[in-house]
Amino acid sequence: MANTKPSRYPSRGTEDKETLYQIIDEGLFCTIAFVREGIPHQIPTGFARVGDDLYIHASAKSRFIDCILDQEVSFSITHLDALVLSPTAFDHSFNYRSVIGFSHVTEIVDPEEKLKFFNLFTDRYIPGRIADVGEPTPEQVSITKIARLSLDNAAAKIRVGDVNVTMKEDAAWCGIIPVERKYGTPVIDHQLPVEKELPDYIKRLIDGSGKP
Amino acid sequence: MANTKPSRYPSRGTEDKETLYQIIDEGLFCTIAFVREGIPHQIPTGFARVGDDLYIHASAKSRFIDCILDQEVSFSITHLDALVLSPTAFDHSFNYRSVIGFSHVTEIVDPEEKLKFFNLFTDRYIPGRIADVGEPTPEQVSITKIARLSLDNAAAKIRVGDVNVTMKEDAAWCGIIPVERKYGTPVIDHQLPVEKELPDYIKRLIDGSGKP
Repeated sequence: MANTKPSRYPSRGTEDKETLYQIIDEGLFCTIAFVREGIPHQIPTGFARVGDDLYIHASAKSRFIDCILDQEVSFSITHLDALVLSPTAFDHSFNYRSVIGFSHVTEIVDPEEKLKFFNLFTDRYIPGRIADVGEPTPEQVSITKIARLSLDNAAAKIRVGDVNVTMKEDAAWCGIIPVERKYGTPVIDHQLPVEKELPDYIKRLIDGSGKP
Repeated sequence: MANTKPSRYPSRGTEDKETLYQIIDEGLFCTIAFVREGIPHQIPTGFARVGDDLYIHASAKSRFIDCILDQEVSFSITHLDALVLSPTAFDHSFNYRSVIGFSHVTEIVDPEEKLKFFNLFTDRYIPGRIADVGEPTPEQVSITKIARLSLDNAAAKIRVGDVNVTMKEDAAWCGIIPVERKYGTPVIDHQLPVEKELPDYIKRLIDGSGKP
């Protein structure tokens, strides 16, 4: 198995599960890397986590899932949280949180299990959505491939906090410039009447109170 | 050479250079995937683009650059721009822009060329910063490794716009929820006097007028 311990700044690394879960669940996509004909490929894709498993999916027509089934892949989820401005160019840095892991990939084939994770995918991004639009049909489930990856060999790497080098009071401006992610104003589809009210579960997603 | 043509939704793919540059330059980090002992590894890292080259760097003490030098790697830069809410769970999607490419990795060893890209790294994230804090010292340049990747074998994949499936007026709320990135309020380092004014070039970065 590949080693997940950071070789540089080992103090920035952790395998604490709650820390991993938080970084992962805040991510909107992961990047999957795999080897094909000796070349490293990568694909960014949506995902959902349940316990120590990550689930990804793709159309059955797509080559992606077939390429990684029963293979060893790596995955990463990264948040760039801030630019860190130091008194010298050399000491500039980023605050970030990332999870990198390695996993064998298995396919979920049982239709009921597939349906369960289909619903989970949807509600993980927009909690309450399945109750509003209904579950996918058996046909829709059958033309979707779902794959499972394990978090058993994953670790987080984190830099937080201040500049961390000593400086004089007359140094250039130094400090942290946060990088923030938020949801913007929803835009209703042109096929719907403009006065159609935004459901409460979407309002809660936007204002952060309904975040998973 | 690996193929960068998307196998699904070929209409979403493009190799148009201006489109690639825009997606890349908006990125704050890229993900580099490489093969070590047959296993696909990946590392998120900061970068700068000049023309059709990407530059990444790391401490000379780090194993990262050594692992990828003279190897074939892939790189990706991804923006998740919106959640796309459709009338059925199945048709939900993301608006996104990503660039994925494959490249041989070469090291930059000439000290003057290294200094040039060191300055470029800094000013690409915070335009005007080098003029304020000065260039790195020859010693600092010497303990940093800089590697170059090419954009010659890269392609963008993009989904933009509306829901794209037909719906009735009485459908559930459907549309786009934008995902936005912005800089937050800068936090001055605790070692500096709190009244120290934020330089104009940082103000311009925050309000978007000084973005590269």
